[in-house]
Amino acid sequence: MIDSNFTFCYDKVNTAAIAVSMEVETLEEKEISQAVIGRLPRYFRYLGELKDQGVERISSQDLSELMKVTASQIRQDFNNFGGFGQQGYGYNVEYLYREIGRILGLDRQHNFIIIGAGNLGRALGNYLNFERRGFIFRGMFDQNPELIGMEVRGVRIMAMEEMEDFIRENDIDIAVLTIPKTSAVSVAERLVKTGIRAIWNFAHVDLNVPEGIEVENVHLSDSLMKLSYNIRRERVKETEETK
Amino acid sequence: MIDSNFTFCYDKVNTAAIAVSMEVETLEEKEISQAVIGRLPRYFRYLGELKDQGVERISSQDLSELMKVTASQIRQDFNNFGGFGQQGYGYNVEYLYREIGRILGLDRQHNFIIIGAGNLGRALGNYLNFERRGFIFRGMFDQNPELIGMEVRGVRIMAMEEMEDFIRENDIDIAVLTIPKTSAVSVAERLVKTGIRAIWNFAHVDLNVPEGIEVENVHLSDSLMKLSYNIRRERVKETEETK
Repeated sequence: MIDSNFTFCYDKVNTAAIAVSMEVETLEEKEISQAVIGRLPRYFRYLGELKDQGVERISSQDLSELMKVTASQIRQDFNNFGGFGQQGYGYNVEYLYREIGRILGLDRQHNFIIIGAGNLGRALGNYLNFERRGFIFRGMFDQNPELIGMEVRGVRIMAMEEMEDFIRENDIDIAVLTIPKTSAVSVAERLVKTGIRAIWNFAHVDLNVPEGIEVENVHLSDSLMKLSYNIRRERVKETEETK
Repeated sequence: MIDSNFTFCYDKVNTAAIAVSMEVETLEEKEISQAVIGRLPRYFRYLGELKDQGVERISSQDLSELMKVTASQIRQDFNNFGGFGQQGYGYNVEYLYREIGRILGLDRQHNFIIIGAGNLGRALGNYLNFERRGFIFRGMFDQNPELIGMEVRGVRIMAMEEMEDFIRENDIDIAVLTIPKTSAVSVAERLVKTGIRAIWNFAHVDLNVPEGIEVENVHLSDSLMKLSYNIRRERVKETEETK
C-alpha cells in the first residue's frame, strides 16, 4: 500500500495501470444482486436475436422499447459490469452479446447429468437449445430397473448406484433433479459429497446445500399459483369496475 | 359521502361497519408487488407441510428459521394482506394456509389445456400435483397428425383447428404453451381472441398480450444461464482466495 501511494505521487504512467487493475478487481469482487443476474439472460437473448438480424449498434432507448424496460434500468444494470457502452453512440451489439455471454459463464462448456428419467427428465434431455449454449447432456440416472440401459438422445440411463463415480470421472458440473421431493433431499446430500458445482432443482422442495454449491429452483407449482393469483386479481378488478 | 360523515358523527355502531367495509376495499384495491406475490406460494407450501404435521400455531420467528427468511420480511409480506396474526401469539397455521390459498385463487377450480404434446407437454399433463391444487387438465393440442387421437392421462390430443371451440365450450382459463418459439407468437394471438384468462408460457420468447390476460413465463434456458453465472462467480472467488 505504501508502495502504491509512493508510485501514485511520482509516476503518472504507473498510476494509470494501478487504477485500471484496481477497477478490474472491484468489478470482479462486487456482489451483483440476483435480480440483476436474473435479467442478464433476457438481455443475452434479445442481443442474440439482434445479432442474427445483422444489427450492429443499438441505443439504450431502442433496446428499451424492444425489451419493454426503461432505458434507465438498462443503464443501471449494465453499470454493474462497467457500462459496456458510450453515451449517445449506443452499444455495439456483437461486443455486448459476447461480454454478457462471458459474464454468464457461457464461454466455457458445462457437463450435466439428469437424475430422474420421467417425462420431465426426458424433455430436458431432448432439449437441443441447452447444447447450443454449451451445456452438454452426459448421463441420466433412475432407480427404476426397467429404464436402465435405455437411451435418451444417445445418452444411456444408468442405475442410481453408478451416479457418484460417473460424476467424478466425467467432469460433471451440474446435476438436474427431476425426481419427486421425497427422494430429492437424500439425492442432493449424495451430490454434495461428490463435489458437484450446481443443482438445477425441479423437485418441489427447498434443498439445503453448503455454501459454494449453487441451487437454482424451478418450482412449477409456485409459478402456476402466481398465475392463479393474477387471474383472481383481474377478476376482482372486473367486479369492481362493473359495480 | 355526506351520508357517511353524518352517520360517522352520530352513530357509533354504523361507524364501525363503515370502517370495516372501507378497510376491506383498501385491501382488495391495493396493488401488491409481484415480488411479494412470488413469495406467497412458498409460504403456502411450508404452511401446508406444517398443517400436515399437525402444527397449530407458529411464531414469525420459528417460521423465519424454518424458511430461512427474516422474521421482518415475513411480517412485511403478511402486512400486505392485513397481517394475519397477533404479536407474541403467533400465526394460526390452518387459518394462514387457507387465507394464503384464497389470496392465491386456489379456492376455485381452474381448467387448463396444453398446447404442444411433446415431452414437456406430456410431463405437465401427467403432473398430478396440479390437480390437487384445483388446476384441472382438460385438453391437449398438437399440429402433428400422428399424435391426434392419442391420450395423455385420459385426455385426448386434438388438432390445433379445434382449439378455439374447445376453449369456449369447456370454460378454459389457462393455456399452457409447450411449443417452439417460432409458433408460440401466432398461437398466443389466437388464444387472446378466445378470451382466455392466462397463458403459462414455456416457449423461449416474450409474448405481447393485451392487459387483463396474464402471462407467466418459464424460460428454462434463462434459469440455466443464471446457474451458469453463479458457477462462474464461485470459480472467480476460489481463484482469488488461492492467489
